[in-house]
Amino acid sequence: MNLKKGYFITFEGIDGCGKTTQMELLADYLRDVKDVAVIETREPGAKGLGEKIRGLLLDYDGEVSPQCEMFLFLADRAQNIDMIVNPAVESRKIVLCDRHTDSTIAYQGYGRGLDIEELTTLNSLATRHRKPDLTIIFDVDVQTSLCRMGKEHDRIEAEGAEFLNSVRNGYLTIAKMEPDRVKVIDATRSIDEIHKDVVNLVEKLF
Amino acid sequence: MNLKKGYFITFEGIDGCGKTTQMELLADYLRDVKDVAVIETREPGAKGLGEKIRGLLLDYDGEVSPQCEMFLFLADRAQNIDMIVNPAVESRKIVLCDRHTDSTIAYQGYGRGLDIEELTTLNSLATRHRKPDLTIIFDVDVQTSLCRMGKEHDRIEAEGAEFLNSVRNGYLTIAKMEPDRVKVIDATRSIDEIHKDVVNLVEKLF
Repeated sequence: MNLKKGYFITFEGIDGCGKTTQMELLADYLRDVKDVAVIETREPGAKGLGEKIRGLLLDYDGEVSPQCEMFLFLADRAQNIDMIVNPAVESRKIVLCDRHTDSTIAYQGYGRGLDIEELTTLNSLATRHRKPDLTIIFDVDVQTSLCRMGKEHDRIEAEGAEFLNSVRNGYLTIAKMEPDRVKVIDATRSIDEIHKDVVNLVEKLF
Repeated sequence: MNLKKGYFITFEGIDGCGKTTQMELLADYLRDVKDVAVIETREPGAKGLGEKIRGLLLDYDGEVSPQCEMFLFLADRAQNIDMIVNPAVESRKIVLCDRHTDSTIAYQGYGRGLDIEELTTLNSLATRHRKPDLTIIFDVDVQTSLCRMGKEHDRIEAEGAEFLNSVRNGYLTIAKMEPDRVKVIDATRSIDEIHKDVVNLVEKLF
């Protein structure tokens, strides 16, 4: 299939929601069935410098100031947009990104209580005002999330149920505010059922 | 000497201006002659997480987006202010900092051409609006800077004379705009002469 333009699709949701698995399934489908060029990336941790930033964010065992954490996420995002997303979309590829701007609003804003208007401005600076063509939120309840994560949590995942619940509600609020861009999928169902919904949403774009 | 309050003093200037040497001399003087508690820090590269961020910034050999670089500096700054500067100033210590907000304005703004108003807003966010009590710019011409740096340059230092000249002019512009906070010292003179000027400026604070 020849695309007339490139697309930027982001995958969002609380930890354990299954978005990473679904992104891989969609990438395989787009490549194998639709025969289009797909680039997979993630935030934090885009290939190259992003991987190093991700290492700092997830593994540093001292105290990290919330403002510092926010700026590290934005650094990773700016590098991802400038070096990976924009060049690929401009050459008519489909870019799939595991977490993007809505993670900042949901985690740092609704989760940690940083100012949401300020975060939105910072996101705009980091992305040079590019918005995803489609954002899919994989919605699960907090019990499902904690159960799927098992026992080996990194620093952010270790903050527990109350925090995750604020983040989940943040995501649902974002979806209500931007219904054209942001779609919510019930991600407590089987991998196959969810994948079908994802394919339906993505095919409506083309 | 008992201080009634803490002080935050920043050391600025282009590479090779001698600010790091002068900061160490001032720290010794304040400790040994004035018997006050002094904390030395730097940006990028405050102790702890900052050292890891500094490593990313100076040694990464791939291409770094200017927006990404800016956010990494801000992350380091936020961590330095929240974890080192604010606690020390609040407990009536003198904090000396090798590079701070004016480096961002001079290097990323005047040097790389990023929007100065935007950078100022970002600096305010990273510092939670704290301004230094005193900023000393160690002014040298670009030839002196390049000569003092010798041959082993890191990524930022490698950008050459034209870039450094824009940065230097940026610093001098900042000093004209904020004459109460920012003082310029001719740093082409001997270490002893410069040190005497630094001591004079700092003692006026107390």
